[in-house]
Amino acid sequence: MYRSSNGSVTPEKRLGQNCIVQPLLTDLYQITMAYAYWKSGKTQEHAVFDLFFRKNPFNGEFTIFAGLEECVKFVDKFSYSKSDIDYIRQVLPSNVEEEFYGYLGNLTAKGVSLYAMQEGSVVFPRIPMLRVEGPLIVVQLLETTLLNLVNYASLITTNASRFRMAANKLNLFEFGLRRAQGPDGALSASKYSYIGGFDGTSNVLAGKLFNIPVKGTHAHSYVTSFNSLDELTTKNLAPSKGGKPVDFVDLAVSWRKKIVSIFNVMLSEVNNGEFAAFISFAIAFPNSYLALVDTYDVKKSGLINFSAVALALGDLGYEPVGIRLDSGDLAYLSLVAREVFTQISKDFKRPSFAKLMIMASNDINEETILSLNEQGHEIDSFGIGTHLVTCQKQPALGGVYKMVEINGQARIKLSHDVDKVTIPGKKDAYRLYGDNNLALIDLLQISSEDPPEVGKKVLCRHPFQESKRAFVTPSKVENLLQLYWKDGKICQPLPNMQEIKERVVNSLKILRPDIRRALNPTPYKVAVSDNLYHYLHNLWLENAPIGELS
Amino acid sequence: MYRSSNGSVTPEKRLGQNCIVQPLLTDLYQITMAYAYWKSGKTQEHAVFDLFFRKNPFNGEFTIFAGLEECVKFVDKFSYSKSDIDYIRQVLPSNVEEEFYGYLGNLTAKGVSLYAMQEGSVVFPRIPMLRVEGPLIVVQLLETTLLNLVNYASLITTNASRFRMAANKLNLFEFGLRRAQGPDGALSASKYSYIGGFDGTSNVLAGKLFNIPVKGTHAHSYVTSFNSLDELTTKNLAPSKGGKPVDFVDLAVSWRKKIVSIFNVMLSEVNNGEFAAFISFAIAFPNSYLALVDTYDVKKSGLINFSAVALALGDLGYEPVGIRLDSGDLAYLSLVAREVFTQISKDFKRPSFAKLMIMASNDINEETILSLNEQGHEIDSFGIGTHLVTCQKQPALGGVYKMVEINGQARIKLSHDVDKVTIPGKKDAYRLYGDNNLALIDLLQISSEDPPEVGKKVLCRHPFQESKRAFVTPSKVENLLQLYWKDGKICQPLPNMQEIKERVVNSLKILRPDIRRALNPTPYKVAVSDNLYHYLHNLWLENAPIGELS
Repeated sequence: MYRSSNGSVTPEKRLGQNCIVQPLLTDLYQITMAYAYWKSGKTQEHAVFDLFFRKNPFNGEFTIFAGLEECVKFVDKFSYSKSDIDYIRQVLPSNVEEEFYGYLGNLTAKGVSLYAMQEGSVVFPRIPMLRVEGPLIVVQLLETTLLNLVNYASLITTNASRFRMAANKLNLFEFGLRRAQGPDGALSASKYSYIGGFDGTSNVLAGKLFNIPVKGTHAHSYVTSFNSLDELTTKNLAPSKGGKPVDFVDLAVSWRKKIVSIFNVMLSEVNNGEFAAFISFAIAFPNSYLALVDTYDVKKSGLINFSAVALALGDLGYEPVGIRLDSGDLAYLSLVAREVFTQISKDFKRPSFAKLMIMASNDINEETILSLNEQGHEIDSFGIGTHLVTCQKQPALGGVYKMVEINGQARIKLSHDVDKVTIPGKKDAYRLYGDNNLALIDLLQISSEDPPEVGKKVLCRHPFQESKRAFVTPSKVENLLQLYWKDGKICQPLPNMQEIKERVVNSLKILRPDIRRALNPTPYKVAVSDNLYHYLHNLWLENAPIGELS
Repeated sequence: MYRSSNGSVTPEKRLGQNCIVQPLLTDLYQITMAYAYWKSGKTQEHAVFDLFFRKNPFNGEFTIFAGLEECVKFVDKFSYSKSDIDYIRQVLPSNVEEEFYGYLGNLTAKGVSLYAMQEGSVVFPRIPMLRVEGPLIVVQLLETTLLNLVNYASLITTNASRFRMAANKLNLFEFGLRRAQGPDGALSASKYSYIGGFDGTSNVLAGKLFNIPVKGTHAHSYVTSFNSLDELTTKNLAPSKGGKPVDFVDLAVSWRKKIVSIFNVMLSEVNNGEFAAFISFAIAFPNSYLALVDTYDVKKSGLINFSAVALALGDLGYEPVGIRLDSGDLAYLSLVAREVFTQISKDFKRPSFAKLMIMASNDINEETILSLNEQGHEIDSFGIGTHLVTCQKQPALGGVYKMVEINGQARIKLSHDVDKVTIPGKKDAYRLYGDNNLALIDLLQISSEDPPEVGKKVLCRHPFQESKRAFVTPSKVENLLQLYWKDGKICQPLPNMQEIKERVVNSLKILRPDIRRALNPTPYKVAVSDNLYHYLHNLWLENAPIGELS
């Protein structure tokens, strides 16, 4: 009795684009501004907005840009439904002219041009990840949704990439579904963790929708659901290569008697419910036997029961996978487990036993992994939940969307806080490389300036500190902002998830190791051209009132 | 040209239940366990699971339970589609028996009973928010989705309720869409912030879907889009009560000349682009004029331009609403603004001017509000984004779902960490009240025990510390776990959002103020009955191996 498929939309279709990504997924003030623009005859003024952030997350010195595909899809489908308009009419004051609603109902993003960094590439403070140009009213109306789509996607991708660097070549799995911001927060977390460098997820729906490898074995409850060997109704298992099923329970029991001495434990102390659980799990999954060994006591129960069952599987030609540790001192327990596995491997001539996988999964963050690396451990694989999906160390990327030009005139947003002053004007962004294909600096220029050239000296200036400037002679120049959407069309193919995932890896390689490192990394340099510097500071002085101390 | 409505599902329908809340929104290990249970003939064993957390969030001593309605809807619709089964088949090993998939395809939650606390009520560590009973396989398969639906909902509701207490009677608006975990994270944030005590949201879609008041005026970009008064094409505004439109620009200009001396500023210093922006915004929204005054300089520009326009509106019979501050020293600037408004109110006999709304919205958290309260300020209304929706201080509630009984036998999950030991057995939870309708203690009992009675002494014990115990004589006893779903049906009406919102308010009133307070609150007591105490400790000793120091 499957759920009827007519009428109800399949999840794949529902999520080709997340159904709630729609023009009303915005702040109300975008719509009130839209009316005020309309009323002031400003709707068609040509506006340029930059989407950027001011500070790298996680005390780091890089960020990975993600969410572009969702942004392009959103712009592509931007239009208000009748139901949307009806709701807006209900929310705005009654004096709003009816003609405005007709105008809104016909609005699309066709006049908009969307420039963006490549999805999955490293980005830095103040360099626009998106530059959005077009009729003021539409460009303004896109703001909140674009920020929503870029902020968390970039944050979690960056977080995942940091875990990836900390874990080096070990396996990383995202286990955060139960701790994410609701169902979709969790799906985004799975998707962008994978892009950022994870090997898979526990989230089955994410696996189905995004084609991400899914992983998982069993929980403590599986173990506690068994009390004794008597409960096992299925006892037989056929050898891997076929043949007559044997009594697998007997086999495991006899192995346990044999090995218990290695552990310096009395057999009566080893938990039988756990043993039954492991046996039944191995019978169900003889080719992928991975057991959670900390329900009662790792050393005095879990490892013994696991090993007995694993050895029994070996007798029948199956390769057990390994164990998972979910509590206690992970470094120590992993060393104990490895020692036991090595011992058994030697004593019983089971070479692969020494290489059993040890997975760890208890509240792990980037620092835990770095500390484990220092202490020494035998973990092969991490399952990471809360700290990954909530980005506990910094749960939001402060991406903003600022007007920088209107009708060809630069605009600046001043602030009491210098860090919040925007860099005005329509700009291009270039990445200048030195030798060895390492990035030296990101340079913002006024769009009308000639691009920097390979082998030619460029003066690069700190946007706000007069004395900080340097000549750079690039051996390669990359134009960072590419056109993705114009005249109602997607202008270049959007890479698939695997391609974005690879770009993350390659993009991090252009950074010097001291910029990438976790502890006290060196800031990557972001500069403005000499022209832009003067342009910025002249505009600033023009707009800032002269203060008077009082 | 509205988006066609045939075929495409309206957002309301799409979100009656969030379309991605479905059985595959789970960890893979639930499904591997399901197969192992099936293979072991354990699917129909009667299991009891508790969903609870171990520590209140935000260094607080209470939590608000939320997400129940979503949980009930999920259980109600629980079934795998053909497409789900096809995907599961693809993910599980090839040796899994085909019959299992047929079994899964027919599975529903009909055999499950769901007990829960009331949505919107205060809850405490170790007391189950949900108790789920039924066939082992189904109850296990519900785990991850239930946790996902309860964890963030309860966390953000609790966070919102803390902001509400800090802000006392001031207005609170949720502005977090751009910083949430993607689109749905934002919708959940809007919904549960409202339930937790906020007055509205900026998120238009949340307003539409959940009928939450939406708020918003304009951004800095609206101000920077104007450069001078010459740009104003619409200049006239009719008086509030009708009549001949007047030149509103002239009126505002003349007011600005009149008031500039109050501010001790030269007219040439006041920004004209900002003035034009405010004028145009007032023409569009004469009845709801609220201006963001910090684009250039609050004291030397924003307040002057705002006041001139507000006075001009007053001339035409409109009541301006107020200002928003989004940077700088909010306490100081709000005092300055209030002083100016009071002065103008006096000088020009505009009594309502003194009461203009002052809204603040820059990266505000609970501590900011508490500190503003101490400093003294004149803010009436807060717009809160990042810290609210990401729950920056603690971005995840560590809710867990633990098996406590199977086939009538209690189960315990031990751990190296005493805090992680579960309280075994099928339990009921009672709240015992003292006089004044204040809650004294939450008491867990074995379900077969008689409920505590009013006026009768009960021995309440700390679950783990032998010497901590007390007699309590309740003047009221509340049975906390109510039956919400049984035999495939919802058993009692689910309250609407307004009712849940009211319950939050009332539920917090049963706590002593020292339990509710932000700084060093007193822990609320959670206890077990004497019977449960002994039951727990006997089972613990039975299951824990005797260690041996080595």
